[in-house]
Amino acid sequence: MSDQARTNPSRARHLKDVERWDRETDVAIVGFGGAGGCAAIEAADAGSDVIIFELASASGGSTAMSSAEIYMGGNGGTRVQRACGFEDSTEDMFTYMMMSAGPQADEAKIRNYCDNSLAHFEWLCDLGVPFKDSFHEQRAIMCLTDDGLLYTGSEKAYPFNRHARPCPRGHNLYIKGDNGGPLFMKIVTENVEKRDRISVEYETRALTLITDDDDAIVGLVIRQHQQELTVRARQGVILCAGGFNMNEEMVTKYAPKLLAGNEPIGNPGDTGTGIMMGMSVGGAAINMHEGFISIPYYPPASITYGILINDKGQRFTNEDVYHARLTQAVLDQPGDRFYFILTVDHYGDYEKFNFMAASIAGTGETVEELEKELGLRKSVLEHTIAIYNEDCEAGEDTQFHKAPEWLQKLEPPLVALDLTPGRGVFIPWFTLGGLDTLPTGEVVDAQRQVITGLYAAGRTACGVVRRAEGYSSGMSVGDATFSGRMAGRQAASSTRR
Amino acid sequence: MSDQARTNPSRARHLKDVERWDRETDVAIVGFGGAGGCAAIEAADAGSDVIIFELASASGGSTAMSSAEIYMGGNGGTRVQRACGFEDSTEDMFTYMMMSAGPQADEAKIRNYCDNSLAHFEWLCDLGVPFKDSFHEQRAIMCLTDDGLLYTGSEKAYPFNRHARPCPRGHNLYIKGDNGGPLFMKIVTENVEKRDRISVEYETRALTLITDDDDAIVGLVIRQHQQELTVRARQGVILCAGGFNMNEEMVTKYAPKLLAGNEPIGNPGDTGTGIMMGMSVGGAAINMHEGFISIPYYPPASITYGILINDKGQRFTNEDVYHARLTQAVLDQPGDRFYFILTVDHYGDYEKFNFMAASIAGTGETVEELEKELGLRKSVLEHTIAIYNEDCEAGEDTQFHKAPEWLQKLEPPLVALDLTPGRGVFIPWFTLGGLDTLPTGEVVDAQRQVITGLYAAGRTACGVVRRAEGYSSGMSVGDATFSGRMAGRQAASSTRR
Repeated sequence: MSDQARTNPSRARHLKDVERWDRETDVAIVGFGGAGGCAAIEAADAGSDVIIFELASASGGSTAMSSAEIYMGGNGGTRVQRACGFEDSTEDMFTYMMMSAGPQADEAKIRNYCDNSLAHFEWLCDLGVPFKDSFHEQRAIMCLTDDGLLYTGSEKAYPFNRHARPCPRGHNLYIKGDNGGPLFMKIVTENVEKRDRISVEYETRALTLITDDDDAIVGLVIRQHQQELTVRARQGVILCAGGFNMNEEMVTKYAPKLLAGNEPIGNPGDTGTGIMMGMSVGGAAINMHEGFISIPYYPPASITYGILINDKGQRFTNEDVYHARLTQAVLDQPGDRFYFILTVDHYGDYEKFNFMAASIAGTGETVEELEKELGLRKSVLEHTIAIYNEDCEAGEDTQFHKAPEWLQKLEPPLVALDLTPGRGVFIPWFTLGGLDTLPTGEVVDAQRQVITGLYAAGRTACGVVRRAEGYSSGMSVGDATFSGRMAGRQAASSTRR
Repeated sequence: MSDQARTNPSRARHLKDVERWDRETDVAIVGFGGAGGCAAIEAADAGSDVIIFELASASGGSTAMSSAEIYMGGNGGTRVQRACGFEDSTEDMFTYMMMSAGPQADEAKIRNYCDNSLAHFEWLCDLGVPFKDSFHEQRAIMCLTDDGLLYTGSEKAYPFNRHARPCPRGHNLYIKGDNGGPLFMKIVTENVEKRDRISVEYETRALTLITDDDDAIVGLVIRQHQQELTVRARQGVILCAGGFNMNEEMVTKYAPKLLAGNEPIGNPGDTGTGIMMGMSVGGAAINMHEGFISIPYYPPASITYGILINDKGQRFTNEDVYHARLTQAVLDQPGDRFYFILTVDHYGDYEKFNFMAASIAGTGETVEELEKELGLRKSVLEHTIAIYNEDCEAGEDTQFHKAPEWLQKLEPPLVALDLTPGRGVFIPWFTLGGLDTLPTGEVVDAQRQVITGLYAAGRTACGVVRRAEGYSSGMSVGDATFSGRMAGRQAASSTRR
């Protein structure tokens, strides 16, 4: 087979076809985002030589583009949680994360994440990552202040609040505005750079893995300055190359629901290369149909006083859930149109933000007028609002269990925002499927047998977060950094081949 | 690595580790169900020697356990369609199947299936498969008469009927009762047995594939009479080993939604072995999250006059769709309970069948009484029925577009059947994910490059049908037999290695 045909990520190269090693190291890491950086630090601190290969000309990955909220807690609470008056329990965190992940939850991985979450917080603090001991009370998608802690999921919403005591676990870096990601990666990069055992090669594409006669991973092929080079990795290769949202063919094939989105969140390198490299040696790619997909309908928090309806005039979810959960409910509903119904007062708040870029679909001095403007069947919205208003008066949402704090009667005049996917609203999305790994980061095959010498972390692996309807902000960077550490540590502890 | 560790389906064996060939043939086929049988016949008729390896002690697979309805049409109509007065168009069939498969449709595969559907019908007739030229008019899940043709999907229902002219395409074998599967496999088996080029080895487990230095598939390892044997396959291996519904770990990991089912449809060999063998050499397993899952709520057809509601008292689908489509709508709805509301008259019809095993959740001399019995919030069902009855009078379901023929006012007394998954109703299910293949049956990797010498068909491959909400009866055996033929033909035309 020609070299050209071989050097694609979906076909591994055999050791016998390797003429010489152009690089040799203990641990080779593909990708220098949050996962790759933390993997490198852990591996180096455990005594291994490390090379990171990064496609871009600088570190960062998708972590640098994010808010870098980090989902941490349990164990009595992090320093920030405790300072803000929250005593978090590991069991509450575990229960919440298990519910979030749904039936496809990886219990061992979530258990490991929760048990070691306080230690992870402390590890990050030791790196120099700053968190302010202050609580941001407002319902927000991201924290635009420098506060250290906020609710970033559906912890306080039904049904989660019936099973796990709510506690805020979104840790926000000590910096104003949506600038956590760049700061976080600056700190990680500085930590990488000051470690002699780690070297970084930028503008380098990972092409394919190299396997020995026992099917162990012993290196990889890279392309650098238009040359193919071989890298020997005595302790293995850690794939931290992100997800696949920039690969339209893969998204269509694996995660068609994400096609409803219009803004892929990630960096141009998120083309699924890492996942394909794993698949090429029998690694099982799992949960590939899932992703984060969201209409970020708040801020302002006051939109939560409104109700979401479909084109039958029906409510179908509690409106106080995390935005991706509400959006999943939209995607699961039949119908062609979705509207958020607000009073004029709350529309006034909304207009100032309009973070989701929704347009006005209709207004009405009466509910009947609004029904007409929206083309709804007569009386359907009237019925929905009558029921809702009765429930508001009684202080209990009997139908969808929105928390009492968000129940306020909807009195006309009313405004309907068009929340229909495909009609202008902003719908960020990213993939949540990847290589199946043990909590150690070791990649496993379809029978969950370890593929010797292969590790994955961050979005290249399938981590603790598995569904849009259970997503909470901070779970991605939390998982990337934590799983990167696990993989780095495990690789560094393995036999040199 | 020890032999024991190697001989599992998720790790391939290298040719260098093969000491001798215990069997040699042109084409080796794993599994003797509908796909494997048809693959063998095509390959043999094209001049190749074939061995089929079957785990069970007889042929049959899941095809023999099915009704063996076969979804065929287009091209002006099959002999049966034309005799029954239906002139089918390839474009209508193609449009319907593309809508059925949804965004993850494989257009090339569906195009090939539709274009060659009449030829497939004729090929089956030539084998001796009998179809009576008669039309079964009743809405039915399966045909218990010997009629040759019936509607087996959502062709006449919204939204399909707005895009493709409805035509019945479910072809039922000329035999009374639900006995199509055994008859079909008897005929296929006779056709296999009378071909000298084909031999069959029963009670034989396929363990793993064998790859050469170029990563081509050149054979497989089998276990027979407690011995491991090697099989050389000069033209390749065709995997027709079924899906993975009998592998609980795989179902949880890949297709969690199917856990709502309670009756896996398939044979004990459906453990995903074929899919794992493909994955072991870099084959891409796609659409793994999807499956057929259904509450078979009809017969009797008259249940269609009722309405399906959730525990908010809301309708959420047209009730005249195929049962798996309605069930997908149930699974996508929030809420804990689902009820089918019938008049006492229609309940009388229902009681005679109760094919889905639903119990009565409540009854009411008035709607208000039924609301109370079901624990619904006051007035919600009243509103739903008022709207529905108005629509029935006007002859148009303005909300969910159930066809006018099924619109009859719901007049109390009323009966509510409990359709809630997990509360007694029968929920058959099977997987729809598998190895990605070209229309030729060639297995491809994550970059859609062909893996030389590897083919897949039937449920081991990801075929033309991709979603519960688009499923129609007859698509599975249709796809299995057709894709088996494509793979058999392609393998037989390939170079002997």
